[in-house]
Amino acid sequence: MGRRSLLLLLLLLAFLTPGAATPVPPALRALSSLHLSTSFRSRPAVAMKYSIHYIQQKVDHFGFHTDKTFKQRYLIADKHWKEDGGSILFYTGNEGDIIWFCNNTGFMWDVAEELKAMLVFAEHRYYGESLPFGANSFKDSRHLNFLTTEQALADFATLIKYLKRTIPGARNQPVIALGGSYGGMLAAWFRMKYPHLVVGALASSAPIWQFENMVPCGVFMKIVTTDFRKSGPNCSESIRRSWDAISRLTEKGTGLHWLSEALHLCTPLTESQDVQRLKDWISETWVNLAMVDYPYESNFLQPLPAWPIKVVCQYLKNPNVSDTWLLQNIFQALNVYYNYSGRARCLNISETATSSLGALGWSYQTCTEMVMPFCSNGIDDMFEPHSWNFKEFSDDCFKQWGVKPRPSWIPTMYGGKNISSHTNIIFSNGEIDPWSGGGVTKDITDTLLAVVIPEGAHHLDLRANNAFDPVTVLLARSLEVRHMKQWIKDFYASLRKMH
Amino acid sequence: MGRRSLLLLLLLLAFLTPGAATPVPPALRALSSLHLSTSFRSRPAVAMKYSIHYIQQKVDHFGFHTDKTFKQRYLIADKHWKEDGGSILFYTGNEGDIIWFCNNTGFMWDVAEELKAMLVFAEHRYYGESLPFGANSFKDSRHLNFLTTEQALADFATLIKYLKRTIPGARNQPVIALGGSYGGMLAAWFRMKYPHLVVGALASSAPIWQFENMVPCGVFMKIVTTDFRKSGPNCSESIRRSWDAISRLTEKGTGLHWLSEALHLCTPLTESQDVQRLKDWISETWVNLAMVDYPYESNFLQPLPAWPIKVVCQYLKNPNVSDTWLLQNIFQALNVYYNYSGRARCLNISETATSSLGALGWSYQTCTEMVMPFCSNGIDDMFEPHSWNFKEFSDDCFKQWGVKPRPSWIPTMYGGKNISSHTNIIFSNGEIDPWSGGGVTKDITDTLLAVVIPEGAHHLDLRANNAFDPVTVLLARSLEVRHMKQWIKDFYASLRKMH
Repeated sequence: MGRRSLLLLLLLLAFLTPGAATPVPPALRALSSLHLSTSFRSRPAVAMKYSIHYIQQKVDHFGFHTDKTFKQRYLIADKHWKEDGGSILFYTGNEGDIIWFCNNTGFMWDVAEELKAMLVFAEHRYYGESLPFGANSFKDSRHLNFLTTEQALADFATLIKYLKRTIPGARNQPVIALGGSYGGMLAAWFRMKYPHLVVGALASSAPIWQFENMVPCGVFMKIVTTDFRKSGPNCSESIRRSWDAISRLTEKGTGLHWLSEALHLCTPLTESQDVQRLKDWISETWVNLAMVDYPYESNFLQPLPAWPIKVVCQYLKNPNVSDTWLLQNIFQALNVYYNYSGRARCLNISETATSSLGALGWSYQTCTEMVMPFCSNGIDDMFEPHSWNFKEFSDDCFKQWGVKPRPSWIPTMYGGKNISSHTNIIFSNGEIDPWSGGGVTKDITDTLLAVVIPEGAHHLDLRANNAFDPVTVLLARSLEVRHMKQWIKDFYASLRKMH
Repeated sequence: MGRRSLLLLLLLLAFLTPGAATPVPPALRALSSLHLSTSFRSRPAVAMKYSIHYIQQKVDHFGFHTDKTFKQRYLIADKHWKEDGGSILFYTGNEGDIIWFCNNTGFMWDVAEELKAMLVFAEHRYYGESLPFGANSFKDSRHLNFLTTEQALADFATLIKYLKRTIPGARNQPVIALGGSYGGMLAAWFRMKYPHLVVGALASSAPIWQFENMVPCGVFMKIVTTDFRKSGPNCSESIRRSWDAISRLTEKGTGLHWLSEALHLCTPLTESQDVQRLKDWISETWVNLAMVDYPYESNFLQPLPAWPIKVVCQYLKNPNVSDTWLLQNIFQALNVYYNYSGRARCLNISETATSSLGALGWSYQTCTEMVMPFCSNGIDDMFEPHSWNFKEFSDDCFKQWGVKPRPSWIPTMYGGKNISSHTNIIFSNGEIDPWSGGGVTKDITDTLLAVVIPEGAHHLDLRANNAFDPVTVLLARSLEVRHMKQWIKDFYASLRKMH
């Protein structure tokens, strides 16, 4: 697996977020009134009524040279909110359009009534509409300078203070941070750094330990491989053998052409460096599938069947076939991911499926603070061997963004593995989610809890209830709600004690 | 009391730091070897052997546009340090030269042996030698942009990680943060934000609540007044009456001249605006005295007798005298502060006694993050009435530094009064210290403790042991040591549990 694919892998985090909704069309984004989304597919549509708001935020919370501000977008849904004994569930937006997150975090909508909760979805700066410098936000490192986790958390803090000040009845209510993936890291870190503003956090599929020297760099690809190994006989072995098959095939003069045809590529492979691009694209597909291996039909960037890896593996049962046969099988497997709808006429290996904004921002973040080492060795995993080469990674970052990553900063800032003095954080992880390798999967203390969902892919628990949910995710959600209720109860108890 | 004096008052925090040492002469500063300071006066000289070191720090921990670094200075004293079962006491440097703090925090030296402790004194960026842009550091708001509490704490975090990585035997040792005054705030905030790096904090005379809407703005001047009221009959009343007396005297044509002579001013008052400058200077003197009202002879910027306010008040027993007589008494009182040595030929109302660097940096900090509202009403205190006018303050800041203060940022960042989820912080305050008005003087939880020293002035507990120490400060120190030992014990216990 090539370096580029490792970089792209990081980008994937950008859109592998809970839910199964069609992204809200761009036309909707500019509106500022009430919206009704009924984009959920696999469960009875829940009316998701929210209002769109904006708050002026300092571009730089940590410096005073510039006094410039920008508009941060956030959504509010208060249908079930009660002033008396209610709560505020605060989604710590991650690297994408907040409306998409809002529409895809069904869990919050499902528990709103029980927790008498106002739902707030805060957009992360430099994503969606919350662009500090508008169209220039990604222009250069000077404009990108304010894209950090610390600034994002400071936005959230400022927003919560503002909401408490301006919404009658909100002042004396407990706030709980929730987020998935990178947003889950933010939720956890927000509770760690601003415990005066949130009584607890639900950090779903948050790989807070996928950083320097905390977990083996190969753990991610190993989990991806396990998912394929367990989803069908010889499945991971077929994939493992496919890389050399591709190499052998493309060594021949007509190989590129044959492969382009066999894989139904929209743009034929023409030069030898296209081979690595192809391998990267295929690797990313397997990684994607591992993250979204949900137990029911879902629709991320591509519509997918239930347990999609099982479907994929039906085409990869026999590794002991000729190279051409193997690659034709690989095509069938890829086709499950890229053409479940049956409408695709060809496969596009340039397809990244992130919104360009999200991809840019996240690429910058991985090149600065969010430095996550990945590697593969081809033995414990089914990918081509690739070691983690920080120097090379750093040089690439400098070329692309003019910045140098600081891999030890996140552990310095957020404590690394030494976080036991914090309280009231639930770390939930699905065992089949490759990100669980960098997550907290064992209780740290009796208030820093790990919830493990054996059949869970990437933040399955944050998705809406579904008839095909495995019982383990139902148990996880019920445990999460129980703890959130306890935090709320504790908050009100201490409030009463003060008065 | 005038606005300027309120601004200057803030500056005073810069040098009202523990101890009684002569500042180390500048010549010493450039050296990087071992030093021996015997500058303590009022107790048997303790050999303070430390070595001077530098670490390269990022100018901007929170942004990646600039990769620039600067040299942060820190001192290490490891005479009593033991690798086996030892500890690291980390002084979170405040607004001044770190050598001066090192020489003046006798408490750390006094307890080093008992705690088998390495002493580390970290200089605060933009003070002493730790100037991010050298001589240009205070040039404009662009160069000053990186002077914030968050950057300073990030320096400390980076330094601790570096020390643990590079000093053999330091890795698995507990670190305790200590600081006084603004340094005390930093120690407390450091434990709040980086609990993975320090097991606890001793925050001495740290007015963490002297911010927006947390304590009455008049509490500071009220405590100053109480100190004078209790130190001699009619003392505060004499001072209260002196302001009008000055006004009346200077209304007359010859008043300025007469007053200049009576107060032995080095530079005669010539214009009417000098009257406010004079009043501000006198106010500051009383404030200074309240902070350094120590029970034994000491030597800050001026040598002082034991309980200096009592000495001052001997000259201010009779408020019912003529204006000229009253002002002659005021002169005698001022003379205690400015001429205890008997060597002063005249009094200089421009004298601020801070090093210019410290004063500049602190002035900027009060104009950005460290916005502390002060006021007086002339009824509950002995000063001329002056309300807190944020608009005026902000305009002045903009004129002086080109920045606008953000008074609500510190409470948003550090939790304001809502800090109960943190642990292992001791807040100590002297009751006669005016800064205790903004301090934590009641236990918040059983690990967020308040230690009150009835006879204590500004961080008396951080000063070296002295034969004239009141028993209350001895008790305070012994309590502090007991808790520090417990933190150290808990650290090693949990370390053993992990292995």
